[in-house]
Order: sequence, then structure tokens, then C-alpha cells
Amino acid sequence: MKKVGVALLGLGTVGGGTYRILKNNHDSIKKNYGVDLEIRHILEKDMTKARALGVDESIISCDINNIINDAEIKIVAEFFGGIEPAKSFLIKCLLAGKSIVTANKEMFSKYWHELEAAAKKGKAGLYFEASCVGGVPIIRTLTQSMQGNNILSLMGIVNGTTNFILSKMADEGLAYADVLKEAQSLGYAEADPTADVEGFDSMYKLSILSSLAFHTKVPLDKIYREGISKIDKIDIEYGKKFGYALKLLAIGKKQGGKIEARVHPAFVPSSHPLAAVKGSFNAVHIIGDNVGDIMLYGRGAGDLPTGSAIVSDIVFAARQDKHRHATFNNLTDKVSDRGFSKDFCCEYYIRMTVKDVPGVIAAISSAFAKNSISINSIQQQVQGQNASIIFMIHKTGERGIKKALEAIRVINTVESIDALIRVEE
Amino acid sequence: MKKVGVALLGLGTVGGGTYRILKNNHDSIKKNYGVDLEIRHILEKDMTKARALGVDESIISCDINNIINDAEIKIVAEFFGGIEPAKSFLIKCLLAGKSIVTANKEMFSKYWHELEAAAKKGKAGLYFEASCVGGVPIIRTLTQSMQGNNILSLMGIVNGTTNFILSKMADEGLAYADVLKEAQSLGYAEADPTADVEGFDSMYKLSILSSLAFHTKVPLDKIYREGISKIDKIDIEYGKKFGYALKLLAIGKKQGGKIEARVHPAFVPSSHPLAAVKGSFNAVHIIGDNVGDIMLYGRGAGDLPTGSAIVSDIVFAARQDKHRHATFNNLTDKVSDRGFSKDFCCEYYIRMTVKDVPGVIAAISSAFAKNSISINSIQQQVQGQNASIIFMIHKTGERGIKKALEAIRVINTVESIDALIRVEE
Repeated sequence: MKKVGVALLGLGTVGGGTYRILKNNHDSIKKNYGVDLEIRHILEKDMTKARALGVDESIISCDINNIINDAEIKIVAEFFGGIEPAKSFLIKCLLAGKSIVTANKEMFSKYWHELEAAAKKGKAGLYFEASCVGGVPIIRTLTQSMQGNNILSLMGIVNGTTNFILSKMADEGLAYADVLKEAQSLGYAEADPTADVEGFDSMYKLSILSSLAFHTKVPLDKIYREGISKIDKIDIEYGKKFGYALKLLAIGKKQGGKIEARVHPAFVPSSHPLAAVKGSFNAVHIIGDNVGDIMLYGRGAGDLPTGSAIVSDIVFAARQDKHRHATFNNLTDKVSDRGFSKDFCCEYYIRMTVKDVPGVIAAISSAFAKNSISINSIQQQVQGQNASIIFMIHKTGERGIKKALEAIRVINTVESIDALIRVEE
Repeated sequence: MKKVGVALLGLGTVGGGTYRILKNNHDSIKKNYGVDLEIRHILEKDMTKARALGVDESIISCDINNIINDAEIKIVAEFFGGIEPAKSFLIKCLLAGKSIVTANKEMFSKYWHELEAAAKKGKAGLYFEASCVGGVPIIRTLTQSMQGNNILSLMGIVNGTTNFILSKMADEGLAYADVLKEAQSLGYAEADPTADVEGFDSMYKLSILSSLAFHTKVPLDKIYREGISKIDKIDIEYGKKFGYALKLLAIGKKQGGKIEARVHPAFVPSSHPLAAVKGSFNAVHIIGDNVGDIMLYGRGAGDLPTGSAIVSDIVFAARQDKHRHATFNNLTDKVSDRGFSKDFCCEYYIRMTVKDVPGVIAAISSAFAKNSISINSIQQQVQGQNASIIFMIHKTGERGIKKALEAIRVINTVESIDALIRVEE
């Protein structure tokens, strides 16, 4: 029986969940996977957390060297979050030949190249299933199950907080600010919700997922990002009427040899499998050139779901005779723009307020036409002296739509452009 | 670069799809996964199939020894289907140290123990991702991603033909026989549809999936099986009204230390992720003690989707330094009944035709009560001199419900018991 020493950096939500799984499932893991996992050291300042979990206090300290110097520790799982000291500690571990397991998407997406270099040097492994979409086995699927495919598209709901907010706005007709407050009081959203609601968290995950999907590094600066904080509930309502659900999507596509990577709110048809993903659930939808559509669905966060992904990585790492490293070579932080496109193609939903006078639709339509943009439908609702118009636009490039809207903005019968929401099929 | 010789047994639908993927994606597999796959031999009688695919005729024969005697062939993928000669050929290959990849669920579920023994002897690998749910990476998920969980439940729509039929009956209000005919003319159902519609295909897959989920062999004779051929469209209609969708489910659960495994039509709430799985799509929903609910969705059949799973296994096998074998030891064909339960617990939908006279509901209700069965709701519709009654029954054991129905069947005001459909939450 292979005995493998494990260390945990931190005993917060996911660290605590991982500790509990390693304790509770120790015997079944030993029986079913042939590895005897022993927690040999934990870094944690807060002894009350350790006591609440019933951890033997003699294995707790604040000194990383207690881990580095223990030759029996082969795997180190990190739960600090943020960049430092996580990054320095993990690089130290890798150089000492200890494999690492992390849920730290921000650090991983920013410093993958440094971690990978240290892992190669130390002949150690780098495991990060828990960094994306919690308990959903999306990393393993991309690395171990898609070998017979060139991936054409990856679209995910990869942030539970924003999906909770958008689902509640849709189901209960509530405004963004009210639902955010409720999510904060329930602990589903942070006091400072920026990382979630402005799409940073989704962007980190998309960088990791699309790098694996397209076998080339997709750095953060190549990703277009837009959050949900400006979403008006009225657009969710209109979308519903047109048969759409609004989701914050992380999208990676390969088109004409170029990768487009973007995070933004998007309408998906209510028949699309992603439309049914509600509340704090996450899902990733992939199209492969051979497998066609597949989707993975589950909990993207939480102590036990994310702990489940961490433990999966620990067992997976413990069973490897030799660790593999990324096969793509451009794993640097500086990647040229060549190979990426920000002029991505979408359908669009555009809502604007105009003066209810003759000629206004003609003026707007001609601005669209001048930019070779084709209108699919126009819906108008008169509200006093003004009218609200929704244009559904056929698939077109981002650059063209922005140019057209600049022209439309200065038409004197156009009061305001209120919403631009991309539509994905 | 690792050069790996591959042989294909058969060039039918999936064999042909696999051939095309290995040809078309050869270079990207080489680049992304570091293995140079070479198709060195194909067993196929029908040269027109080979010519249509543009196969070099010099590598085609009908003699398995051409494969056995080629030391460069490390991996053999089988597409014959059925038991023989597939089984004998594969055992020969395994004993010769060649790993095998198969989509043959019937052979695999029946003779896993023989194949495993030969694989151990030959130090070869046994890969069968394509045997269950086509392109959906469910086998890899169960073996490589659930290590941090005891799986509590596995529920899948694992047969595309029956899901196509049930979806069409539901969406278009058509009768079973009419939709089956259409499915046959479209090539979605076989001329003899028994294996699909009577649940045999689902049962083979459930045996494999639940064995992996529960780390113990779940042989075919421990699985309750019931098909969809007796489903009346009226029950799909009533189910819809109660908020349910009807699916043919393959279910494995672990309750009170016992495994229950069953294939039968079941109602699931329309909000359940499986309810949205329409047409020929497949999905498997898993509940783990830590990860909670996850679901995998995709195409369960077809040349390229299933070929994608075959190629995934070929690449996976080609990259292993050492092949793993099942860690559960009871991989025999004879497994005792201990550890399995056929008295599973469900909610039930029961429709019967009764004479429209006073006292009939009282008589039926008292028969249920005598068997400690609790009624959730009763819906009655008068039709001439008779009435149609639907009982929704609270969770109870299978044995009790059958006993109650025997008693009800002989009540003289009861004309017929028309439908018994289990309900899963």
C-alpha cells in the first residue's frame, strides 16, 4: 500500500472541507484507490478553526519549512487564495519535489508559467481541478477525455454568485441592487463583490479553461471582460419574452485560426442546456469537432464540492508514477496578440430610448445599414413622448456594432442607448 | 515522440468514425498529446466499406493473427459488437500484451472478469469509455474524478433510441408504435428494437457504470429491468400535468449498505436536470457525498461521438507507462445476492380503471392502507360508466406496492390496473 504524506496550507472554507473529506473518506480512498493518505502538516494561524475541526494541534504551525523539510510530504494543497504568500510557498514546495494541488484561480491564471517551470525543475506535479468550477470535473475532462477532438467552443457559467443573482432577478423580477444585497446577507456574495460581479473570477477561470481547450496559453489580457452590475431587470424581462435566458458566460471559441475569449452577460435560447442552469449551480458546455455538444453541470463552490475536487487531485497525484507537464510551450506571461481576436461575432440585443416622432427608425436603420449590419427584428413600445425600441441584430462583428452605435448615439431623436447584450446560440 | 501502432477490429459505423478521427486529427493528437498513432491493421470482410473510407487495402485482412504477430501494434480497438468472435479476439490480444479499447457494452458487462484476468496476465490495459454513453466522458469521470466521494446515486438516460421515442411521444402527443416506426425509418431504431426498447442496452451500461460507482461488480442478474414498449401516451400526458417528464432511467443507488440497480421508465420533476435531456441526447446524473449533484450531458451514440470516446481511450492508453486494473476483487460472473436489494423504494404513479360506483375509492384506499402504503393524491376522471383514477403514492417499498396491487386487482369494482410508473426526485 502506497503511503503518501499530505500538507494543507490553510484551514478556511475549502481547506476545512478538504480536511473533513480526507478524514471521513480515508478508509474508502485506501480501499478503492490503493493510497493511504496521511495529513502530516497544516499551516494555519487561527487555532480556533483547527480546534473546531478536531485537528491534532501538534501538526499545525505557521512555518512552511516544516513542510519543505518533511520528506514524507509528497503533496501540498493550498487554500490561502490571493497571490502571496501562496505563490512563493508553492514554488518552494515544487522545487523541493512536492506536487501541489490548488484551487487558487487568480494566482494560477497569472503565474502558471512560473509554477510550471518550478514543477519541471522539481519533477513534481501541478494539479488545479479545483481552480475552475468547484466539484465539476472540467479540468480532467479537458485533459483526459477530449483527445479525439479539436475543441471549437467552450461556454460556461463558471461563477455561482452571478448566476444566483441573475436567476433571482429573472425568477422574481427583482432589481440587481436588491438581489445583490440579499446575496451578501446570505453569504453568497462578498462585502466587496467586484471580483464576482465584474467578471474577474470568471475571467481567471476562462484563462485556465481555454488554455487547456485550445492547447495554447490564453492570458488574461487577451480576454474581453464585462460584468453584470449594469444589467437592468427590464432586459431580462424582454429577453424572456423573446425566449432567452440571461447568463454571465465565459466563452472561448476558435474561429478562422484565431481564439476569441470573453466574459460578458449573454442571452441564450431557453432551450439551450445552459439556460436551465439555475441558482448557484455552474456548467460548462463544450463543442468538439467529433463529439459534438457535451455539458458538465454541478456545484462550482462550497467547502465539500471544491474539497471533493481537491481530494480528487490529491488521489490522482498520489497514483502517478511520473507527473506530466503542459505540452504547450508558450506558457509565458507575455503572449503576442497574433492568434487572438477581439472582433468577435455575435448576434445582439440592443435597447434604446428615442423620441416618438416619424423618421427615427429610418435614421437608426440607415446607420446600421451603413455599417453593413442586418436587423433581424424591431420591437417598439411607446412610453409618453418617448419610445423604447429593441433591435435584434443578425450575427455581426463587434467592431461594426460599436461603430454603428457611435453614429446612432448622435442622432438627435435618439435619447439614450440603454442596453447592448450579446446573444449566443 | 512515442510511436504507437493501432489496429481496428471492424469498420462499421463507430469503426469508420474512429478511422476518420485517427486520420483527420492525427497531427493535432501528435502535437497536443505527444503520441504518434499509426493504424497498422484493420480486420474487415467488406472491402467496399474500406474503399469508401480510402483505407490502404494492404492493411486489411480477416486474420486476427496479422494483429497478434505485429509487435508494433500496442492497442486494439474493437467494433464487432456481440459476443463472438469479439471476446476471443480481445482475450488473445490482451494475452499478447496489447491493450484493448472497446465500445462493446454487452460483451464487456458479461465477460469483464475474463477480460480483466487476461489483461492482468498480459500486463495490458482495458479501456471502455465508449461502452457507456458514447462521447460523454462518464467512465473517466467515475474512475479519475470522484475519488473524494462515496457515490450515493447514479441516474442516467443512457439510451438515445428510447429517449428519442419518449421525447417525441411527449412533444407531439404520438403513440409509442407510431414513433417507433418513424424511428426505425430514420435509422434511430433497429428493425428488431428489443435491445433498446426493452432496456437491455441500458442494463448493460448500468452494470458497468454502477460497478465503477460502487467499487463492486454489479452483475446483470442483480438489475431489475423494464422497457418502454408498454408506455401509453396518456400517462405521459397526465405526468406532464403533474409536472413530470417520463424518461427511461438506469438507476444505481446505495442505501443501507445495499446496492439497488434498476432500469425502468420513471417520472422525474420537470425541474430536474434530466428532464431537459431531449431527443437522442444522453446524460448521467450523479450524487456524491461531498460533491453533491453533478451531471454529464452529450451524445450517447453515433460514428464520431462514440469514435471520439474510442480515440480518447487510445490516446489515454498510449500515454500510460503501466496499465491499471480494477481494484475491486469480486469481478466474477457469480456474485451472491447479499449486498443487493430488489425491494427498492420509490414514489409511484398508478393509473387504474374502475366502475364509477360509490365505495370504490374506499376499497382501494383500504387495500393500500393494509400494506402500510400512504397515498399522496387521488385524481379521478369519469369516462362513461367507468372512471380513470390516478393515485400518487408516497415513497414506499416495491414489495409492498406489488402486494397491494394484487389485492386491488381482485376488487370487483376494479376493471384494470393500467399503469405503474415509478417517480424519482
